[in-house]
Amino acid sequence: MIFRQLFDETSYTYSYLLADEQTKEALIIDSVEEKVEDYMLLLGELGLTLTATLDTHTHADHITAASVLRDRTGCQSLVGKQSKADCASAKFQHKDLIKVGKHSLKVLYTPGHTDDSYSFLLDGPEPKLFSGDTLLIRGTGRTDFQNGSAAQQYRSLVDILLALPGHTLVYPGHDYKGASVSTIGEERQHNPRLKVASEQDYVELMEALHLPNPALMDIAVPANQACGKHKPLA
Amino acid sequence: MIFRQLFDETSYTYSYLLADEQTKEALIIDSVEEKVEDYMLLLGELGLTLTATLDTHTHADHITAASVLRDRTGCQSLVGKQSKADCASAKFQHKDLIKVGKHSLKVLYTPGHTDDSYSFLLDGPEPKLFSGDTLLIRGTGRTDFQNGSAAQQYRSLVDILLALPGHTLVYPGHDYKGASVSTIGEERQHNPRLKVASEQDYVELMEALHLPNPALMDIAVPANQACGKHKPLA
Repeated sequence: MIFRQLFDETSYTYSYLLADEQTKEALIIDSVEEKVEDYMLLLGELGLTLTATLDTHTHADHITAASVLRDRTGCQSLVGKQSKADCASAKFQHKDLIKVGKHSLKVLYTPGHTDDSYSFLLDGPEPKLFSGDTLLIRGTGRTDFQNGSAAQQYRSLVDILLALPGHTLVYPGHDYKGASVSTIGEERQHNPRLKVASEQDYVELMEALHLPNPALMDIAVPANQACGKHKPLA
Repeated sequence: MIFRQLFDETSYTYSYLLADEQTKEALIIDSVEEKVEDYMLLLGELGLTLTATLDTHTHADHITAASVLRDRTGCQSLVGKQSKADCASAKFQHKDLIKVGKHSLKVLYTPGHTDDSYSFLLDGPEPKLFSGDTLLIRGTGRTDFQNGSAAQQYRSLVDILLALPGHTLVYPGHDYKGASVSTIGEERQHNPRLKVASEQDYVELMEALHLPNPALMDIAVPANQACGKHKPLA
């Protein structure tokens, strides 16, 4: 399998290219609009056919490349069932399997950061979890907008993600300190947000954060609900 | 094997942590001074013992953490035979093997970016090349200072690095556009700097670049020749 972690230095977003080496089918998780030319170049160089873009959730800090990539490649754009992006080609839900050649991603509904937050699991001897903004490296995604819920996130984390095998590699939607990957075992043990004793303690911890809104939120959310289509930014 | 690619967002440097899962011995390639606390935390969380730091060359754009890490952990600090950093614990040369637990890195002398530029090869079913500033993703390191030589670099690239198996993963010392890894096969085919017809054409291409010096060069080079020891920066 071809696997690439791609970094957007403006929003500190990690996007992921996954492709089947034999069939040359590819998908991109959490694409970033500004990086479209890089994606197109890389897909061309590697001889890949983009079959789908997947968004883990409706992002508030960057605009998805879903619609531009669909226009340019004819790929499907996929979002979660709870997403307001009705322009998407199709919607996935918990336990769906999304194929890329002979591989498949298992869809996990992990609400809390937003009510349309999903994670994707690529099984194998070295399982990979794409955890969006639900589970970050030594952190978790904020829960204070877009129908976020700290209580729901706690359940998504404890009941679904941390229940995966300890050696599962964790590939998050962002990292702000230069880390690129972790494991479920490490996050169980060392994630400071998960050292709380109960769901209620987690809710209190998250409620006490009082974070400023993302700079691009008022633009990114409506744009992403339109699959990334928007008027020129300035 | 535990493997982590770590990013310094100031200098766009990639550092690499490699460790043996059984023996817990670890080494860091191209450490960055500002990231020492992150390294110490990660080593502690993973229960690793740092046995050595390796520098691919005398960096001009950031200061190595070699001396601080040696002071704090008792590890060896290793540099190439041609390096002026006589304060290093030991010097490696072409074809040396550097052990990390039951794994070993093969040392490849690949001068050209500087006269003390090395690459490291981790063999296995998925071989990994740590190519420093010799081979970058769709680029190559500049050759206009610190006894750099475009002719030497061309030979290092063509005769040594590109001669590795095509599926070898390439982990460079920097990327400025958000790429994290490539392969030898891809670089053979798509690296624009390597589309030249001859060594002479490569020399002309590199001589025509006329790049400004790195901002930190006059501080970083002497500091790195002192294994990273330096007076406070401001």
